[in-house]
Amino acid sequence: MRCNALLALIFVLPSMPSVAQPAPIFGLAIHGGAGTITRATMSEEKENAYRAALTEALNAGYKLLKAGGSSLDAVAAAIVVMEDSPLFNAGRGAAFNAGGQIELDAAIMDGRTQKAGAVSAIRTAKNPILVARAVMDRTGHVMLTAEGAEAFARAQGFEVMSHEYFFTPNRWESLKKEQERIRNNRPESESTEERKHGTVGAVALDQAGNLAAGTSTGGYTNKMAGRVGDSPVIGAGTYAANDACAVSATGHGESFMRLVVAHEIASRMRYSGLSLKDAAHDTVMNKLKAIDASGGVIAIDARGNVAMPFNTEGMYRGQVGADGEFKVEIYR
Amino acid sequence: MRCNALLALIFVLPSMPSVAQPAPIFGLAIHGGAGTITRATMSEEKENAYRAALTEALNAGYKLLKAGGSSLDAVAAAIVVMEDSPLFNAGRGAAFNAGGQIELDAAIMDGRTQKAGAVSAIRTAKNPILVARAVMDRTGHVMLTAEGAEAFARAQGFEVMSHEYFFTPNRWESLKKEQERIRNNRPESESTEERKHGTVGAVALDQAGNLAAGTSTGGYTNKMAGRVGDSPVIGAGTYAANDACAVSATGHGESFMRLVVAHEIASRMRYSGLSLKDAAHDTVMNKLKAIDASGGVIAIDARGNVAMPFNTEGMYRGQVGADGEFKVEIYR
Repeated sequence: MRCNALLALIFVLPSMPSVAQPAPIFGLAIHGGAGTITRATMSEEKENAYRAALTEALNAGYKLLKAGGSSLDAVAAAIVVMEDSPLFNAGRGAAFNAGGQIELDAAIMDGRTQKAGAVSAIRTAKNPILVARAVMDRTGHVMLTAEGAEAFARAQGFEVMSHEYFFTPNRWESLKKEQERIRNNRPESESTEERKHGTVGAVALDQAGNLAAGTSTGGYTNKMAGRVGDSPVIGAGTYAANDACAVSATGHGESFMRLVVAHEIASRMRYSGLSLKDAAHDTVMNKLKAIDASGGVIAIDARGNVAMPFNTEGMYRGQVGADGEFKVEIYR
Repeated sequence: MRCNALLALIFVLPSMPSVAQPAPIFGLAIHGGAGTITRATMSEEKENAYRAALTEALNAGYKLLKAGGSSLDAVAAAIVVMEDSPLFNAGRGAAFNAGGQIELDAAIMDGRTQKAGAVSAIRTAKNPILVARAVMDRTGHVMLTAEGAEAFARAQGFEVMSHEYFFTPNRWESLKKEQERIRNNRPESESTEERKHGTVGAVALDQAGNLAAGTSTGGYTNKMAGRVGDSPVIGAGTYAANDACAVSATGHGESFMRLVVAHEIASRMRYSGLSLKDAAHDTVMNKLKAIDASGGVIAIDARGNVAMPFNTEGMYRGQVGADGEFKVEIYR
């Protein structure tokens, strides 16, 4: 009997740690915009720069999640990296509107409480996603816009930047080209695809099982002054609820608003019983396609499943889970 | 045989007109806000004024629908009447924000095309619902905000009004009372219920079978400058799609945004197979109640069924169908 007990001990011991402490589940997915992004139009240098920035953004969120931090903090950290990079159309590097100004939109949502914060049409805050977070945490409101949002950001001590900080030559050139196209009555098809897209976003599941989503954007080149897209609209470009999923979208914002895309994906999981993958895929590939709307989403559910469907040539994207394996992709 | 044929003719004839020309189906429902509206707090004079204004708004939409006009036109016409009345918190009579200014939000959505238009935080347009309609009809955008939206309204020739036009003494008093309450650290419960509510909206089905929804509001008294509520957010306070329903909401806007209420009702009809009545009732009475959110919705489906659930003491509301019978109600 003693021998049997000893044998049992020998065989049981190696597997005990995993019984006592189940492997943590967490995950993070990010996007940096979708569009006509093909190998043919991308230099190796540019590709490397995007891959490095996406990896840095993923890493900022991953470190927090691995240490037991919240999905909200991870989402904000990943987005801040992309807002600070001039490569993406959010924060620094934002697209210019028809008046040659930048107007930034952002939103964040907490899947545990379904609380949310958003800002639209703000011009001077370095990190709109952090101002959106403060709207959620420190006001009774969900969305602040324009001057009122600026005043709130200043009162909260957020970093204020000059027009020069946000200025990037390629976005300016994009505006000039687009305005020339319109002056010369050249067809919409000659508009650079790049002008229509560009948004950054993140979705995460933390070790406590809570989901969060965030999105930040400069909108698109030559948009009307005051135009608000889907990114800061809860249910359209940004949505999170623990009983369904967390979603951040990128693409033709007006179409995403009309179809209430992020909440649509959650609703199909809740009421049609679809998996995250099927709900996200069908919404992007069929529902959006049916109204000629290009773009994609990133989504994660409470079990850490990730879906990143897009109906364009490419989408800057990345994901990482508890295994610590970083996956960064650009093309289809 | 001749006699039988004659008899058949006699019995068939009276029902023939309804076979050749089926009775038209159309309908309109409106609301003027929900809250602690009880008989005890309402004078006969005030009640009569509200009933008259609601009837006038219903009639403006009804006339158009009866003549074969579109649900979009009927929704806009009904809302314009309520925006122009100082009784309702929309257009003239709007609530003041913390800075003593009015900032107006509105949205309209076409159930046939699922196109939509919205404005937020505008200060001078007499009829925000008409500016929202113009955003839908004359731009590629869904939402314009603040200065950009103002500039668009002026460029489109919309009537611009002074601060004095929008000013109503009772709203101003409501602001002063609320600010005094906060200065004296008196509890939220002493805040007048009236300050938290007030929005106008309309939903309609026209003879062509098309649905539309619209909502317009001044938000609530002492809101932060730049605060945007659910009214102009497609999916939250306003939504229409022919395959489901048209919805306009009123209540604690932030909660309606977090639950994406209008699109939630449509989703439960689409994916859970609920009737309009059950989907609207459960969302307002259970889902909103669960997060302590007060308010209500008006909703109509493609068969002309109307639902108007609210979880408050009262909701200014009215409906009329093809029978021409006007129903105007205030209390539970």
